[in-house]
Amino acid sequence: MTPSMSAVRVDGHRLLQRLRELAEIGALPGGGCARLALTDADRAGRDLVVGWMRELGLEVTVDRMGNVIGRRAGRDDDLAPVMCGSHIDTVATGGVYDGNYGVLSGLEVVRVLNEQQMVTRRPLAVAFFSDEEGSRFAPDMLGSLVYAGGLGVDAAYQLIGVDGARYGDELQRIGYRGEAPCPGPAPHAYLELHIEQGPVLEASGITIGAVTGVQGISWTEVTITGQSNHAGTTPLALRRDAGLAAAELTLFVRRLADELGGPQVGTVGLVDLHPNLVNVVPGRARLTVDLRNSSEDVLLLAEKGLHEFLDELAARDGLTIDTRVLARFEPVEFDLRMIELVAGMADHLGQSVLRLPSGAGHDAQMLARVCPAGMIFVPSHRGISHNPAEHTEPDDLTAGANVLLQALLQLAEDA
Amino acid sequence: MTPSMSAVRVDGHRLLQRLRELAEIGALPGGGCARLALTDADRAGRDLVVGWMRELGLEVTVDRMGNVIGRRAGRDDDLAPVMCGSHIDTVATGGVYDGNYGVLSGLEVVRVLNEQQMVTRRPLAVAFFSDEEGSRFAPDMLGSLVYAGGLGVDAAYQLIGVDGARYGDELQRIGYRGEAPCPGPAPHAYLELHIEQGPVLEASGITIGAVTGVQGISWTEVTITGQSNHAGTTPLALRRDAGLAAAELTLFVRRLADELGGPQVGTVGLVDLHPNLVNVVPGRARLTVDLRNSSEDVLLLAEKGLHEFLDELAARDGLTIDTRVLARFEPVEFDLRMIELVAGMADHLGQSVLRLPSGAGHDAQMLARVCPAGMIFVPSHRGISHNPAEHTEPDDLTAGANVLLQALLQLAEDA
Repeated sequence: MTPSMSAVRVDGHRLLQRLRELAEIGALPGGGCARLALTDADRAGRDLVVGWMRELGLEVTVDRMGNVIGRRAGRDDDLAPVMCGSHIDTVATGGVYDGNYGVLSGLEVVRVLNEQQMVTRRPLAVAFFSDEEGSRFAPDMLGSLVYAGGLGVDAAYQLIGVDGARYGDELQRIGYRGEAPCPGPAPHAYLELHIEQGPVLEASGITIGAVTGVQGISWTEVTITGQSNHAGTTPLALRRDAGLAAAELTLFVRRLADELGGPQVGTVGLVDLHPNLVNVVPGRARLTVDLRNSSEDVLLLAEKGLHEFLDELAARDGLTIDTRVLARFEPVEFDLRMIELVAGMADHLGQSVLRLPSGAGHDAQMLARVCPAGMIFVPSHRGISHNPAEHTEPDDLTAGANVLLQALLQLAEDA
Repeated sequence: MTPSMSAVRVDGHRLLQRLRELAEIGALPGGGCARLALTDADRAGRDLVVGWMRELGLEVTVDRMGNVIGRRAGRDDDLAPVMCGSHIDTVATGGVYDGNYGVLSGLEVVRVLNEQQMVTRRPLAVAFFSDEEGSRFAPDMLGSLVYAGGLGVDAAYQLIGVDGARYGDELQRIGYRGEAPCPGPAPHAYLELHIEQGPVLEASGITIGAVTGVQGISWTEVTITGQSNHAGTTPLALRRDAGLAAAELTLFVRRLADELGGPQVGTVGLVDLHPNLVNVVPGRARLTVDLRNSSEDVLLLAEKGLHEFLDELAARDGLTIDTRVLARFEPVEFDLRMIELVAGMADHLGQSVLRLPSGAGHDAQMLARVCPAGMIFVPSHRGISHNPAEHTEPDDLTAGANVLLQALLQLAEDA
């Protein structure tokens, strides 16, 4: 396929301005954002973006999961739309680009097409999916998971958040429990523009990533039960210290990832001790293990290693150890045409391009279940993300949005 | 000194009944108590015990730290009183005996003496000191520390609790900011009855511990600052993971205690990660290190080892590590006459007795700064304490209270 280029370009200043406006909702004192899924801040963010969709003349649909889709009519309006999008929820200490950049770039594309009075053959759709981060309601990518038929709506409604709230109740409360069916209709194709959230593009001096696929993700919650006791009077040999076991597990996860090598990563991001007091030996520890690999076989091996270690630890220290799967997604390979379309458009726009896998999970991997899907990455400064210091250079943001524009125009002319 | 014995005995059933009544305040669902210092539950517990003091005819004084002393007149009422007591605050997941047992046994002694119409030469005093546990406001043993002149009242008022509240404000709020001066008057002697909170007496099959002294305590708060980042996209080699460093510190503290051997113990009881999310590399960790030894020299060595390790860790992983002393008390040796009085009285009452040090800190170590002080221990089942499962057999509770009764009668006849 030889892509034909359009002369239209996005307005990077406008895009940045919109990013700044959205970032004011849930803004953190030192920069960054907190808009956890289905909180009041998330509702305010949704209201703002839905308002912008309506200003652009998009037909807005809210489905039963709270996924929001803004649709722009095409010349052959009965054809399935070409969809772009991402999410606008954030982690508790999030940056301003993660997710938001893809959604607002989609709206900037629509704005440019409106101004140019360009009508594509297929309809275009800009979507934001609910609870992509999974910080409040696990698993992550929940909205797109249900959209793509990977989990039932009713099961999702029953999920309990870290604060004890129920997904269905919170969705109702913020006014985003829509009527449209979910799973939703399969688009013709789905293309997601996103910051890399890793250091590879910046370190390589390259502007555009044509994403080849997404690492598999395994999240396990581990609960260790020992015996809480007085820190001054309990001899070391008699302790069943759940906090000590949690520390050993944390170091094991790092060692496991180091030993498996390659793209394998492993993280203990959450630890809660009980009773969590200076002078009490912890009797209980709850922690999470995040394992990722682009090879399903190696990921299975990592999970096996984790469970063997937990069995040994429980036996050695007289502990009870329970595990629960919080999320499990196999690695995803994106559609080859989508990868090459992104790479080709970047090249035609004079941008350097690198084909690379994604270490983070994204809504695109869910949409890949129902249609050809792909992703465009732009560099993240020092690879920092899920952090208020998350940053991408304005020129890179603009470059990525122009690749999105050209690729969408191309896809939207498909028969 | 050959102790002369009185024929009077406490009523163990009455004592148990009172322990049960006090345990209803702040009762936890599965047993045990939560009456953190200066909370509403602590106030309710104080009100109940003060009511009992007044019923017994004691003259109740509340000092500026909220320490409460109930005084029973003596024949030579100008002499300094013989004091017993302990505390009635608990940790967040406390048992029903820790502290409460010593205070209510003192009141049971007074009740017996009232019934027998016995008047001692010196006045008797039953005290409960504020915030012994230190779970809400560090350091622990705060009320008795200030009573004994180890810290100024105004400095104590400025202490900020784990929930952000100020000691002086909370004391005022619960109505226990009294008028009596603090530091308070030195008693003639102080004797504290307490559960062992360790396994030694039970394991030895012995009922009464004559406590020889208290281990030195060193509490350090450690704050580790690294870089929070995405758990899926950040290569292992580029991470500055504060949670991983916290885990290494936790294991180091155990290794340090093992290597120093003897009575040395070391505990990491509290760990708070930030942002504490499954998919974010922790950027900050706050944890506490509790080190104890009966030798000041070895305790200093342990602290030196801790700081050397933290320096190495910071340098190796590119972390910033800050430390803050939460509490530091040198080991205390109790007055020899008090130790032998407890041992002799236990012996005369037909109880087995063991001279042993205390691994836990107690108000008695603060009173030891201003008068001869001592302690009586009774066994703790399986050494469990700071835990709802804390248990001591009723016969042992009664035996300990009878040793207290006899020892107080002896001390109260001193010229």
